[in-house]
Amino acid sequence: MFNDFKLTEDRPVYIQLKEYLKRMITNGHLLEQQKLPSTRELSSLLSISRNTVLTAYADLEQEGFIYAVKGKGNFVSHVETFKSQSFQLNWTEKINEQTLLADYLDLMKHGVRWNKGMISFNSIAPDEKLFDVENFKRAFLNRMSIEGDIVLNYGYAKGYKPLTEYLLNYMETKGVDTRNKDILITNGFTEGLDIFLSSLNKKNGRVLCENPTHYSALKLFRLHGFEIDGIEMDDDGLNVCKLETLLSKKEYDFAYLIPSYHNPTGIVTSSEKRKEIMDLFSRYKLPIVEDGFNEELRYSGSHLAPLAAFAGLGNNVIYISSFSKILFPGIRVGWILADKELIYYLESMKRARTIHTSTLDQAVLYQYLYDGYFEKYIKKAKSVYKKKYELAVHYCKQYIPFKRITGDGGLHLFIELENNIDSRKLLEKCYQKGVVFSPGDVYYTDSSGKHTLRLGFSRLQEREIIQGIKIIGETLKNNFGG
Amino acid sequence: MFNDFKLTEDRPVYIQLKEYLKRMITNGHLLEQQKLPSTRELSSLLSISRNTVLTAYADLEQEGFIYAVKGKGNFVSHVETFKSQSFQLNWTEKINEQTLLADYLDLMKHGVRWNKGMISFNSIAPDEKLFDVENFKRAFLNRMSIEGDIVLNYGYAKGYKPLTEYLLNYMETKGVDTRNKDILITNGFTEGLDIFLSSLNKKNGRVLCENPTHYSALKLFRLHGFEIDGIEMDDDGLNVCKLETLLSKKEYDFAYLIPSYHNPTGIVTSSEKRKEIMDLFSRYKLPIVEDGFNEELRYSGSHLAPLAAFAGLGNNVIYISSFSKILFPGIRVGWILADKELIYYLESMKRARTIHTSTLDQAVLYQYLYDGYFEKYIKKAKSVYKKKYELAVHYCKQYIPFKRITGDGGLHLFIELENNIDSRKLLEKCYQKGVVFSPGDVYYTDSSGKHTLRLGFSRLQEREIIQGIKIIGETLKNNFGG
Repeated sequence: MFNDFKLTEDRPVYIQLKEYLKRMITNGHLLEQQKLPSTRELSSLLSISRNTVLTAYADLEQEGFIYAVKGKGNFVSHVETFKSQSFQLNWTEKINEQTLLADYLDLMKHGVRWNKGMISFNSIAPDEKLFDVENFKRAFLNRMSIEGDIVLNYGYAKGYKPLTEYLLNYMETKGVDTRNKDILITNGFTEGLDIFLSSLNKKNGRVLCENPTHYSALKLFRLHGFEIDGIEMDDDGLNVCKLETLLSKKEYDFAYLIPSYHNPTGIVTSSEKRKEIMDLFSRYKLPIVEDGFNEELRYSGSHLAPLAAFAGLGNNVIYISSFSKILFPGIRVGWILADKELIYYLESMKRARTIHTSTLDQAVLYQYLYDGYFEKYIKKAKSVYKKKYELAVHYCKQYIPFKRITGDGGLHLFIELENNIDSRKLLEKCYQKGVVFSPGDVYYTDSSGKHTLRLGFSRLQEREIIQGIKIIGETLKNNFGG
Repeated sequence: MFNDFKLTEDRPVYIQLKEYLKRMITNGHLLEQQKLPSTRELSSLLSISRNTVLTAYADLEQEGFIYAVKGKGNFVSHVETFKSQSFQLNWTEKINEQTLLADYLDLMKHGVRWNKGMISFNSIAPDEKLFDVENFKRAFLNRMSIEGDIVLNYGYAKGYKPLTEYLLNYMETKGVDTRNKDILITNGFTEGLDIFLSSLNKKNGRVLCENPTHYSALKLFRLHGFEIDGIEMDDDGLNVCKLETLLSKKEYDFAYLIPSYHNPTGIVTSSEKRKEIMDLFSRYKLPIVEDGFNEELRYSGSHLAPLAAFAGLGNNVIYISSFSKILFPGIRVGWILADKELIYYLESMKRARTIHTSTLDQAVLYQYLYDGYFEKYIKKAKSVYKKKYELAVHYCKQYIPFKRITGDGGLHLFIELENNIDSRKLLEKCYQKGVVFSPGDVYYTDSSGKHTLRLGFSRLQEREIIQGIKIIGETLKNNFGG
C-alpha cells in the first residue's frame, strides 16, 4: 500500500496526496473504518513533509472522506464506492432522428483521417505560427487589470457591452446603417446561424444558397429540416438568372450567402452583383443571412461593402460573422448584426440555451481589437497568406489539369476536374502518397460536385504546397489520364 | 470638416484616424473622388505626426477606401454609403412559437428591475470580491507559455483533452465508475442540458423533477415541449412515496434532479434517499439527469456521493455540472459525464451547433484546477459563504414569520410563508423600501408556490443581509399581519 504513489513536479504535493487517498477510498482499496497511517509514518513512507500530510488529512476530514478520533488517529469514513450494478440502457435507441443525422453528417468523425507527416490541404484554419500570442497576453492582462472581477462574473446574453459597441461602430465603418440594428454575441458563427434557424418560423421550409456552400451551414439546414436549393457560381458570384428563376417559381424562407471568399469556391461576389442580388431580394421581400466569412482577409482591390450595407435602413439582412476564423479560432466569439426586433427575440433564445458567451473571450477580444493589435496582425497575415495563395495558384495552373479553378484570395482554392473524374478516388491514390484534401461533393446541395476538391493552404509551408500540388497533379495524370 | 476628430489617449492614433476617415466616407461626408488634405495639411490640422497620417492613408488605400494619384494626392474611392431604402420586414411575424415562449419566459427581460443601492437577494452568483484574479492570471500565463498556439487554435468538440482527462479523474475521486463513461465539454451547464434535450427521442414527452426546481431547466423543458411533473420536497430530498406513485402511474422519458443545494430550496438529499431514488430508477429503467449544482460548496458533514456514483457501472445517470457557478461564471465551461455511447452522439450535436467550447476558457480553467488554486479558493469561499449563510438563517428565524425555511448551506435560502400571503405583493412593498428578492412561484412546475421566496445572499455584505431580512420581516408584519 502507498507504494504506487507517484509525484509530479509541477503540482502542490498535498493536492496530489489528497487525490491519491480519495481514489484509494472511492475504489475500495482503503475500507470504511480502516485506520490511516499517522502523519509521521506517511510522511516518512512517501518522503514528503509532515505538514503536507497534515494539510491533506485536514482537507479530507473537512470533505468527509476521513474522520479523526482523538488519541487514536484518522479513519476512513463511509464513502460510496464503485458498484458492479449493471443496469444498462441502450442509448442508441433513445437518440432522436436529428441526432443520428448530426452523427451521420459529422465529417470530423467520418471524414478521411490523415497522419502526421502527411501534406494536408484539408484545413482552412489560420496558421498557428502566425498567432500573435504576446499581444494577446498583453490584451488579457490589460483587460484583467481594468475590470478582472467583471470579466470573471456573469455577463449579459446580448454580449459584453464594450465589444457590442465596438462591433456596431466597426459595422458602420463598413457602410452599414446601424440605426435600426442591434448586435448579439454568439459562440462563433455556427451558434449564430443555429439560433437564427431555431427561431425562424419555418413557413415554407425551403432555403436558397450558393452551390456549393459552407458545410457547417448545409449541415444545420439539414438538421433543421430545410429543403435546400443551390445556385451555381459564376466567377463573380452566384448566377443571378438562376436566382431569379428560382425566386419566381418557389417560396423560400430565406437565403444564405457568402459574398467574400465564398467557402468552398473562394469567389468574391462583385459589387454590381451584390446590388443586383439585393434588388431581387427587396422585390421578393426575402431575408438574407449574410456570412461575413473572412471578409477581413481581402488582399487588395477596391472596398467591397457587405450586403448589409447595401440594405441601408432595410432590415432583411442578418449579418453573421466572427474574427475567430482568421484570428484565434480557439476563442469562440461571433456576432449577429440584424434588425433590433429580431435581435430582441434571438437574445432570449441565446439566454435559454447558453446564458451568454464567455465574458473572458469577449473581453480579451475587445481589448485586442481596441488596442490596435488586430490591425497589425491582419496586415501580417494578409502578406503571408497572399504569398501562399499566389504560390498555390501558380503551381495548380502548372501541374493540375483542371476544368476550372476559383479562389480570389483567402485561404483556399477550389478545383473542378473533368466531369468523369471522381475526386474521392483521386484522394485514395493521393493518400497513399501522403497528400490529402477535401473532396468537394460534401459542399454541394445536390449530388453534383463529385469531380471537385478544395485545397486549403493556410497551414502549409511553401514547399509543402508545391510538393502537394505536384503529387496531386501527377496522380491525376498517371491514374486518370488527365 | 475634421474639427470633430477627437483623440482618446489609450489607442494608436493612426487607427483612430483611419476609423474617423472610414466613417466620413461611408456616411457620405466625404464624397467619391473628393480630394483629401495632404498628409502635411492633415497632420498640422489635427496636431498629429505626419507619419501617423501616412500610415492611415496607406492602410485606407490598401483597403480600397481611397486611391492615390501620383503628383495630385489622395482621393476618395467608390464606397457603398448609407441608403434611405426602407424595405421593412415584420420580424415578429417571422418568429416561431418556441422563440416567443423563450421571450415570455425570459426573467432577465421581464423580471423585477432593481436599482443600484437597493439590497438585492436576487442573485445566487458568486461574490466577485472573492475572485482570485491574481492566480487566474497566473494560470492563464502559465498555460499560454506551455501551448499558447494550441489554446488559440481550433480544438475538439468533445473538449480540451487535458481538461476532459482531469474531469474524468475528478469524477472518479467522487466515487464514479468512469470505465463506461465519457465527458463532453459544453458552454456551461445550460448548453449541456439543452444538447441532451435536443438529442433525446421524446417518446413520452414527460419529465419528472423536484418541485420547485431550477428555473433555467424548467424553461428548457418547456421550450422542448415536455410535460412536467414535479415532486414536493421533504427536508432530506424529494418525497419518495410521491415519486413511486408517479412512476407507477405514468411513463416518463427521464427525471431531472439536483441532489445538493437544490435550487431553489437549498435542500441536500441525504445519502439514504439517494440510494432509494437510484433503486427506484433502476427498477423503472429510467435515465436521470443529475445537476451537480454547487456540490463543491458543502460546508461540512460527511461525504455525499453524487447519484452518478451510486449508479456504479450502470449507465442511466447523465451528470451535468460546471465550476463556473462558484468559481468564475464569466467563463462558460460545463461538462456532461455520461455513458460513452450517449456522449458519442451528443458530441455530434455539440459540433453541429457550436463547433466546440472556447479552448481558452477550458485551458485556463484546467491550469487553475491543476495548479491547485481551485482547492485554495474553495476553502476561502466556503468560509465566507458559511458565515453569510449562518447569519441569514439566524436573522430569518428572528424576523421573518415563515411557515418553513430550507437551505442546508450554499448561497441561498428558500422560505415558505403562510399560504394566504402572495410573495409578489410582498415584493412590491419591499421594493419601495429598497429590498428585492425572487418570488418563488417561477420555480414551480405548477401554479403553487405563490407564497414562497428565494433569498440569495452570496453577493451581499453582512450588514445588508441583516438589514434586508429585517425589512422583509417588518413589511410582512405591517402589511400581511404575519
